[in-house]
Amino acid sequence: MKGAVLHGPRDVRYEDRAEPKIVRPTDAIIRMSATCVCGSDLWPYRGFNPAAEPSPMGHEYCGIVEEVGREVTSVKPGQFVIGSFFASDNSCPICKAGYQSSCQHAEFVGGAQAPLLRVPLADGTLVATPGAPSTDMIPSLLATSDVFGTGWFAADAANVKPGMTVAVVGDGAVGLLGVLSAKRMGAERIVAMSRHEARQKLAREFGATDIVTERGEEGVARIKDLTNGIGADAVLECVGTQESMKQAIGSARKGGYVSYVGVPHGVQLEGQELFFAHVHLHGGPAPVRRFLPKLIDLVLNGKVDPGKVFDLALPLDQVAEGYRAMDERRAIKTLLQP
Amino acid sequence: MKGAVLHGPRDVRYEDRAEPKIVRPTDAIIRMSATCVCGSDLWPYRGFNPAAEPSPMGHEYCGIVEEVGREVTSVKPGQFVIGSFFASDNSCPICKAGYQSSCQHAEFVGGAQAPLLRVPLADGTLVATPGAPSTDMIPSLLATSDVFGTGWFAADAANVKPGMTVAVVGDGAVGLLGVLSAKRMGAERIVAMSRHEARQKLAREFGATDIVTERGEEGVARIKDLTNGIGADAVLECVGTQESMKQAIGSARKGGYVSYVGVPHGVQLEGQELFFAHVHLHGGPAPVRRFLPKLIDLVLNGKVDPGKVFDLALPLDQVAEGYRAMDERRAIKTLLQP
Repeated sequence: MKGAVLHGPRDVRYEDRAEPKIVRPTDAIIRMSATCVCGSDLWPYRGFNPAAEPSPMGHEYCGIVEEVGREVTSVKPGQFVIGSFFASDNSCPICKAGYQSSCQHAEFVGGAQAPLLRVPLADGTLVATPGAPSTDMIPSLLATSDVFGTGWFAADAANVKPGMTVAVVGDGAVGLLGVLSAKRMGAERIVAMSRHEARQKLAREFGATDIVTERGEEGVARIKDLTNGIGADAVLECVGTQESMKQAIGSARKGGYVSYVGVPHGVQLEGQELFFAHVHLHGGPAPVRRFLPKLIDLVLNGKVDPGKVFDLALPLDQVAEGYRAMDERRAIKTLLQP
Repeated sequence: MKGAVLHGPRDVRYEDRAEPKIVRPTDAIIRMSATCVCGSDLWPYRGFNPAAEPSPMGHEYCGIVEEVGREVTSVKPGQFVIGSFFASDNSCPICKAGYQSSCQHAEFVGGAQAPLLRVPLADGTLVATPGAPSTDMIPSLLATSDVFGTGWFAADAANVKPGMTVAVVGDGAVGLLGVLSAKRMGAERIVAMSRHEARQKLAREFGATDIVTERGEEGVARIKDLTNGIGADAVLECVGTQESMKQAIGSARKGGYVSYVGVPHGVQLEGQELFFAHVHLHGGPAPVRRFLPKLIDLVLNGKVDPGKVFDLALPLDQVAEGYRAMDERRAIKTLLQP
């Protein structure tokens, strides 16, 4: 089969790769219905964390179970399933506490930008839909695999509750779905920090009540203006840079909550600043598996349409263009169809 | 009157100071029943944060109201009162959210190591006891003013719940009262990290079930050993150094809670390490006012005896020896009697 492989900065190729096989009796092989490019894929694409050798890309997936190992009992061939980028046993104490992405047996699921994918720990990782979903549901179901699950975690980790004022730093797909998640959790006021018109529009569709285009200290000052000098009850940091983290912490009220869900790059937090900011801080790799059943349910019942973040759909063999479009911010997020 | 004044590193003098007066109509003057030396007083005492000029010292206090400004309505002369080191109006949105130490009108209450003290925002700051407490209650009531309130906040901010495994980094008075607080909140297992025999003993009296003498990575390894490799559900960081913070974060389980209540000195948190540690982080200046009514009640009803942390009591004019004893770790905490 062919699949996406990163050879170096801005060099993604759709090329021959070995077809995945069942390696352990707890594995499943799924045939991809759709996959996509993640904002986090752009870090290696842009030359951060350079890999020593060509790397199969992609970690967002949904599709039909093709084959299962002999110990797999909860899913079977023919079922439509969704899983997260971290395989998890969903039974260890860490999983039971809701942190499946740090499962004691966690394993990164890579190489999803391909027609077939091996998913380890299939019983713990995969969630099957009640029946075969209609084609128009696929983008939103795919979104639950990572980007919606991560946006949801951002809102959950920032303790969003009904009536709160929420600020979202970052207008990528995760930030936008952070807006949607905050809305579903009952936030009264949602401030999207964005200077990009198409993204502002989608943020408003998803529930943003205010848009702030300023960044850094000016952005913080605008959030303070909008909140009688207090700051937001909850701030979702969906970028992962020093500037965005500083902006997020500065925008929160004393005693407020700041979540961060993008892998931090070059972020250093000064202890005394954090101390007097008086915020709650929580984040990390989103434990999407915790939320999957609920999010799939919201999608299947037509309550949310997170698939709207896909503003570019390409055949899988044009994956390189999918990366380019996101790198150049021509697309929010690229859906890839095998 | 005379009071404690810091002139430079390790140079505390009991010397003439102006008697405090009502400055604003919201002030109260209280006559000290007892005061004490705080672990945080040792930072300037040891020459960190050197002050440009001689500084009146002390911020823990309880005593009898001597005089009130004309706008004060909730306390009156003759009442026994306790307050926190940050005066707060207790009515702004930040106070209402429970973060009185970051009140929009917060004001540090300094110079408490003296017979008389001016307390700003008396209505919001001071809590009166139902009657005059007996003399033997004074140390424990004084403890609620800061050290017990801070230990309690450490446990609260680390989300301690019944049945949890809790680790406490730091065996100073705050850490020891973090142990007591975790016990009151129903923690099942409480690991005190201490290598000092007298403190270990008090930690056990307060509810510690295990003692770990190792520090740094070895300390983390011991906590992991004690928790089947998982880490503690909640970790209270009660020191404020880079080493103690690293030890605290390393000791928590994925998805666990780390609180920090000592002003950080030289602490830098690396974003990506924190991200993958997957912990909740919360701390800052303890909003003691939030907890004061409850803690006073626990003391007056004989449920807790936080005053046990005072293992040295001196007349106020021997304040210099009080600092020395704590600096040299001969005393856990020094009570000062005017």
